[in-house]
Amino acid sequence: MMITKRWLCVAAATLLTAGCGQGGGGESAAPGGGAGGDAQRIAAERNLTPDDVSAALKTYMPTGRHDDYIMFASGGHSGQVFVIGMPSMRLLRNLAVFTPEPWQGYGYGAGNEILEAGFVGDHPITWGDTHHPALSETAGDYDGEWLFINDKANARMAVIDLRDFETKQIVKNPIAINDHGGAMVTPDTEYVIEGGQYGSPLGWKYAPIADYNKSYRGMVTFWKFDRAAGRIDESKSFALELPPYWQDLFDAGKLASEGWIFGNCFNTELATGGIEDGNAPFEAGASQRDADYLHIIDLKKIESLFQAGRTTKINGFPVIALDTLIEEGALFFAPEPKSPHGVDVAPGGEFIVVSGKLDPHVTIYSIDRIKQAIADKNWEPDAYGVPVLDQDAVVEAQVEVGLGPLHTQFDNKGYAYTSLFLDTAVARWTLGGAYADKNPDTPWTLVTKIPVHYNVGHIVASEGDTVSPDGNWLVSLNKWSVDRFFPAGPLLAQNFQLIDIQEPGDKMQLCYDMPIGVGEPHYAQICKADKLSPWTVYPEIGWDPHTQKVAADAAQAGKEGVVRNGKNVDVYMTAIRSHFTPEHVAINQGDHVRWHITNLERAEDATHGFALPAHNVNLSLEPGEAITFEFDADQAGTFTYYCSEFCSALHLEMMGYLLVQPKPL
Amino acid sequence: MMITKRWLCVAAATLLTAGCGQGGGGESAAPGGGAGGDAQRIAAERNLTPDDVSAALKTYMPTGRHDDYIMFASGGHSGQVFVIGMPSMRLLRNLAVFTPEPWQGYGYGAGNEILEAGFVGDHPITWGDTHHPALSETAGDYDGEWLFINDKANARMAVIDLRDFETKQIVKNPIAINDHGGAMVTPDTEYVIEGGQYGSPLGWKYAPIADYNKSYRGMVTFWKFDRAAGRIDESKSFALELPPYWQDLFDAGKLASEGWIFGNCFNTELATGGIEDGNAPFEAGASQRDADYLHIIDLKKIESLFQAGRTTKINGFPVIALDTLIEEGALFFAPEPKSPHGVDVAPGGEFIVVSGKLDPHVTIYSIDRIKQAIADKNWEPDAYGVPVLDQDAVVEAQVEVGLGPLHTQFDNKGYAYTSLFLDTAVARWTLGGAYADKNPDTPWTLVTKIPVHYNVGHIVASEGDTVSPDGNWLVSLNKWSVDRFFPAGPLLAQNFQLIDIQEPGDKMQLCYDMPIGVGEPHYAQICKADKLSPWTVYPEIGWDPHTQKVAADAAQAGKEGVVRNGKNVDVYMTAIRSHFTPEHVAINQGDHVRWHITNLERAEDATHGFALPAHNVNLSLEPGEAITFEFDADQAGTFTYYCSEFCSALHLEMMGYLLVQPKPL
Repeated sequence: MMITKRWLCVAAATLLTAGCGQGGGGESAAPGGGAGGDAQRIAAERNLTPDDVSAALKTYMPTGRHDDYIMFASGGHSGQVFVIGMPSMRLLRNLAVFTPEPWQGYGYGAGNEILEAGFVGDHPITWGDTHHPALSETAGDYDGEWLFINDKANARMAVIDLRDFETKQIVKNPIAINDHGGAMVTPDTEYVIEGGQYGSPLGWKYAPIADYNKSYRGMVTFWKFDRAAGRIDESKSFALELPPYWQDLFDAGKLASEGWIFGNCFNTELATGGIEDGNAPFEAGASQRDADYLHIIDLKKIESLFQAGRTTKINGFPVIALDTLIEEGALFFAPEPKSPHGVDVAPGGEFIVVSGKLDPHVTIYSIDRIKQAIADKNWEPDAYGVPVLDQDAVVEAQVEVGLGPLHTQFDNKGYAYTSLFLDTAVARWTLGGAYADKNPDTPWTLVTKIPVHYNVGHIVASEGDTVSPDGNWLVSLNKWSVDRFFPAGPLLAQNFQLIDIQEPGDKMQLCYDMPIGVGEPHYAQICKADKLSPWTVYPEIGWDPHTQKVAADAAQAGKEGVVRNGKNVDVYMTAIRSHFTPEHVAINQGDHVRWHITNLERAEDATHGFALPAHNVNLSLEPGEAITFEFDADQAGTFTYYCSEFCSALHLEMMGYLLVQPKPL
Repeated sequence: MMITKRWLCVAAATLLTAGCGQGGGGESAAPGGGAGGDAQRIAAERNLTPDDVSAALKTYMPTGRHDDYIMFASGGHSGQVFVIGMPSMRLLRNLAVFTPEPWQGYGYGAGNEILEAGFVGDHPITWGDTHHPALSETAGDYDGEWLFINDKANARMAVIDLRDFETKQIVKNPIAINDHGGAMVTPDTEYVIEGGQYGSPLGWKYAPIADYNKSYRGMVTFWKFDRAAGRIDESKSFALELPPYWQDLFDAGKLASEGWIFGNCFNTELATGGIEDGNAPFEAGASQRDADYLHIIDLKKIESLFQAGRTTKINGFPVIALDTLIEEGALFFAPEPKSPHGVDVAPGGEFIVVSGKLDPHVTIYSIDRIKQAIADKNWEPDAYGVPVLDQDAVVEAQVEVGLGPLHTQFDNKGYAYTSLFLDTAVARWTLGGAYADKNPDTPWTLVTKIPVHYNVGHIVASEGDTVSPDGNWLVSLNKWSVDRFFPAGPLLAQNFQLIDIQEPGDKMQLCYDMPIGVGEPHYAQICKADKLSPWTVYPEIGWDPHTQKVAADAAQAGKEGVVRNGKNVDVYMTAIRSHFTPEHVAINQGDHVRWHITNLERAEDATHGFALPAHNVNLSLEPGEAITFEFDADQAGTFTYYCSEFCSALHLEMMGYLLVQPKPL
């Protein structure tokens, strides 16, 4: 539905009279007809506060109107990515990534080879704990082309193509069994960063926990992204050996800090737990020291070390040894408040913000101060010989924001926003330095807090991780909802809360509570919708989404049929409203079947499904798409295949029979 | 947040002034603080029509306020069920049913035996095409205790317990390879009905398509539900052999028609397709005759036939032969408009409404007329000898509603609502007979239509399938969204549209468009939220959700540890914020491991996850829950298990090491 400017006056005028209780607004010819207009009566009947009313009007999308922003949210341990429209907070699509999903056909006859590439050793792995989605960037701004996301549980990285919103690649990290600090990209997406989490022997070999300091290590991997190929190029990727501290998050420098990579960590205590033996549990053992270490990595130096072959191979993957990093001045540490969660680079790259969750301050580091301290060799080595820069030399400021500070985001008004886990609130505070002109009287100062419900982890601002956040919206990713929603059993939804941050000062408005009962989203990024250019039909008939070109073996209209070559049978089938061709597929028990289906439709939304009973096959064939799947016809019988997308009035008649004749006795 | 009556005047008064442009409403002390109140400005800035404003205010739920209704929607070929709050249309939870889902741990260490019971022959089946959810009923009203849903693709039925909203049972239909007309329940949930779809040899044995009339059959299965056990009792369940017409939907009679079961069908032409051989495709072949057959089944008679052993066994399952049904007067047909989709019984049971999708009328049958025609033996046999009742004798009325009528729902104002696929609209029309007092001047008359976007299939009214629909809301389940939402690639979301049907006459208001990008929901039921009594924590620590009692082998606090018996190792582990006990599990390659975990928490929302890398294990342990999973430790190494639910400030430290020592060489 096109909304014309005509509505501007209609809406304003009608509300005026309706608001004055003179009624009649509801009688307008507005689409949807009838009951509309009587805002006053409805608000009173439903006990809506003035803030409820404004929130409702800020977030409601009239029928047919598209959302302004698209949020790409991790699906947590659902293994997927959620595509959410903003400000309406409606779930537009669940993208299958690490977990098979039959509506999309992913792992049910299509995409199986992508999932198999992510298996660990000889163990099929059919889920992931997705953590940090990262949109591809050009010059530090989201370019809307690619999305990357990591799997913490098995240390894997996935690549999603935003032309068709489908997963194209999963790579298993060859040296780590778990990760956390991924995916983050460099400002032009040359690299996708994957940082480790819990110390383990590299290559996850067996080593007794008693040998922790000697045999266990941390790591960070730099996956080279080949934008033209649309794939991570494993042959141009490498990793760094790090001390067995527990690396948490990484972020790439930008503008003032481009060429530098920042990470943080916890458990510099090197605690190894063992509560069952009377040892301090990890939660206590990893929280003893006052400081952990901010990691500072020189990207140019590690690139040249990799290119110079200064690596050792672990599980066949090149790793730059810790000693080499130290010797070549490629890795530095700086003290950071203990047990931090966040390491976030300001839009201009001048500052790096770290929050230690047990310290009520955020700590702000300056890239200029860091560079100077390195030049001055102003450091002491840690237990592994890594230079630890002097804290006073590198810290620009500290701001007390509240209890349990975690992650920081930025806007266009010189404010930063930090999630407070223990306060269950979000703090707004002012940046100084290069941003001081925006709030000259109060740099590095807490402005206000807004409560959230409950236990916020990450927060995300619109265009928040770019060089130009736009300062319109903030979403609080809350881990607990407790009493917020009707409980659908003991497993409660997470809660995304949408906050309007457009007004300066102490005005932030909570506008919407969105339950997430489809996983535990960990982080998200919010992109302007107009930066995305998705396909609504595939470019040509016979399209293979995996290669993004027409498939050589695609079934073609007029050439459908069953071709037998000994026990190998090729089925060439087309789908168009409202029939499959052929409608009978007669084969023999023991045949090996390669089944090729092409959707001949060119109309938007004219998707056909293909469900094959008793074979665990369901395909989603979008307009133009061609898919090939294979199986062994080991079971004789009569199997009714059918279109599983309600495509037309005669959709129920869109079916056929697979007839598998028994082997003669 | 408790909403107090205090808001009533605040809201009304403030809106009044705000509406009159005198401002200031935003300065109220309402929660969320600040920017609120200025409804007029926001509506004008966002070009909201008066109807948009009323729709926004009718559907917005202030933070912390619970929805009034819960919609249980089929997840289509996602294989799941979606729990949606209304009127906000927010997805509260995705319930794992036929498809493994790692956030819930379903199929990843928990619930595996439920999924395995649904495998077909020796083929693992890990998805379903869920179609019609049915809430359990007491005296024809939803009682909020159980939910049933069928899988069309593989002819299976699932049972979900609405105390914890988890799937407890999947049963495979022993005689059918596909279904459609399920799940529907009898008024006290004695039976869950599963009707077939495409004709096939019973037991899905091989038979050439040329033998269709002789060897292929239709069916309907009556699954006996044991409410005390919370399971379908397969030993007390049975099926009916039907002619190989394609059964579509079934509904159970209620009140005036209690004891009767109604179904409809298409392809009474017995078309067998074969477009590749120059035959008419199914879409044409199955649409030749003017009429198909309404199925009318005498429940008491088939129950007594089953109890008398008048059955034959197919795949070990009792089936009442078609000849027996005819001979005993248990099955009748009546002509119905061709290719119908809907068969819907009016709240009082007096009328059965059928829509033939190629006929612009809905056809209304009277149970009294049906009984009389049976008493009068006013019939002719069909090709299989089934008595076909005289059309004029059994039809009460016909109402012209529009093009492509499918499904009908009811309200409390004497109206019926029918979805119109080709018009992409919903028609409101008046009932006559027992309902004529509500609209005395215009019985059996079309009142109005409202457009929907696009291609509506089912519609569902609040409390719509009960003996007392409440007439507040209607949801249109639209198959296509086309341009309604921002496109997340070529696979577009379905669109649930919420319609306010509270006002009589021609007033129906479209209030909300909800994208469904998580599957293709087929049907739904809407229940008043206060009819549900979900648990928010499990009743006791050590609870097994499968048996709904404390597990004998549950790990207990103070008794954690690793117990070895030869190569069999039992791990007893507890979880509580923020550690697992034990934190080290040292075993040997080649051991068989039984791992028992109990969540000791009693606080609402204090769920812990348990992720085990490289083993495809992720558990969701809700407060009190105990889970046991098993695996063979075939791979040596160091594996970092961790809590995958963000449970506390020290959640990241909640981890441990599985140390698998290699076999000595």
